[in-house]
Amino acid sequence: MAFRATVLTLYPEMFPGHLGYSLAGKAMERGQWSLDTVQIRDFATDKHRTVDDTPAGGGAGMVLKPDVLARAIDSASQNDSRPRLLMSPRGKPLTQERVRELASGNGIIIVCGRFEGVDQRVIDARELEEVSIGDYVLSGGEPAALTVLDAIVRVLPGVMGNDLSGQHESFEAGLLEHPHYTRPQEWEGHKIPAVLTSGNHGAIDEWRREQALELTRARRPDLLEE
Amino acid sequence: MAFRATVLTLYPEMFPGHLGYSLAGKAMERGQWSLDTVQIRDFATDKHRTVDDTPAGGGAGMVLKPDVLARAIDSASQNDSRPRLLMSPRGKPLTQERVRELASGNGIIIVCGRFEGVDQRVIDARELEEVSIGDYVLSGGEPAALTVLDAIVRVLPGVMGNDLSGQHESFEAGLLEHPHYTRPQEWEGHKIPAVLTSGNHGAIDEWRREQALELTRARRPDLLEE
Repeated sequence: MAFRATVLTLYPEMFPGHLGYSLAGKAMERGQWSLDTVQIRDFATDKHRTVDDTPAGGGAGMVLKPDVLARAIDSASQNDSRPRLLMSPRGKPLTQERVRELASGNGIIIVCGRFEGVDQRVIDARELEEVSIGDYVLSGGEPAALTVLDAIVRVLPGVMGNDLSGQHESFEAGLLEHPHYTRPQEWEGHKIPAVLTSGNHGAIDEWRREQALELTRARRPDLLEE
Repeated sequence: MAFRATVLTLYPEMFPGHLGYSLAGKAMERGQWSLDTVQIRDFATDKHRTVDDTPAGGGAGMVLKPDVLARAIDSASQNDSRPRLLMSPRGKPLTQERVRELASGNGIIIVCGRFEGVDQRVIDARELEEVSIGDYVLSGGEPAALTVLDAIVRVLPGVMGNDLSGQHESFEAGLLEHPHYTRPQEWEGHKIPAVLTSGNHGAIDEWRREQALELTRARRPDLLEE
């Protein structure tokens, strides 16, 4: 059964966005995954189709109403065991491990927040898993949802042409990836490191491992501590 | 002068993607920022317009050629002081602080990698700043570039309607944001916390600060250590 993604958003026109092209787009055409969107606004009940209101206790911005969002979630997830994510800078940071877990399931429901935030009661009552793609703030959950889906789709079975390609990359071994080189052998006076053209595969593996370790130590010592 | 973004990519059709809508799209229409793309393939010189080659030393995937990419970068950045980013999981993690720094400049040049990676010599010779949007792997730099640009555009001067809104959000004070509530006062049996409807602004501020601290301690103790 193909991986099924449902995105709840106020901006369905943002989807599939970049996921309609290249690797993800081709996988979608082949039926390896599907994407549908739910317009949250369709679940408002007043004539102005109001989806947000001012924050209780005051402050800037607007908060997504719990009743409207809950109806949208319920409509998208009846008899549905797919994980329900809420994209939010307050969430647990996304990792490659979680990406692989999500990709091993049958699909995902993603709620995109907008405005100042989402009423906490609907997050609790509908058991939304708050997930963050990084320590910065976006205009809404949509760019984050598109990013998560891109990460998931590329590791779905059969999507990457060469399955080996996924195994020697950043984070898969807890390290950043070693540097890459390709032809020309000499470019602007800089040569490819001699070991890589030595034909000695043991030495090449060792060099790559050392480079990956060194890079990780310099840029991301936090990864080595884990 | 408006903020000017130039993206080097093999998939210019992915842009402006979600940035063409809502906050970023309106800011673009108002001329507060601009986005142009450079097709890296246009700088190949052989008749097949080759942009990649096999990795020196062997292994899966393909590596973006240094000569082709350097020509694309040089064409986009003549007499140009804009920072040059390379989106890469090996990069320094993007933070909200870096987003604000980038937004305070006159623009940005973003190189999107594809395939296994980019030849290290062009990263060094063209002083590309490797930036990562999170600890997961994407199909290419494009989703990451669109995400970085979304984060930058929303903090450009005049883009957010209410400038206050940017100041009380996750990361700006080193904390995750407190929970939000809005009407109805009671929903599915759950009430808005009484303090928020008390009218006591001192108590509300204190409650929010405590909630933010508690949430950060539970989910992101690493932020408190910094």
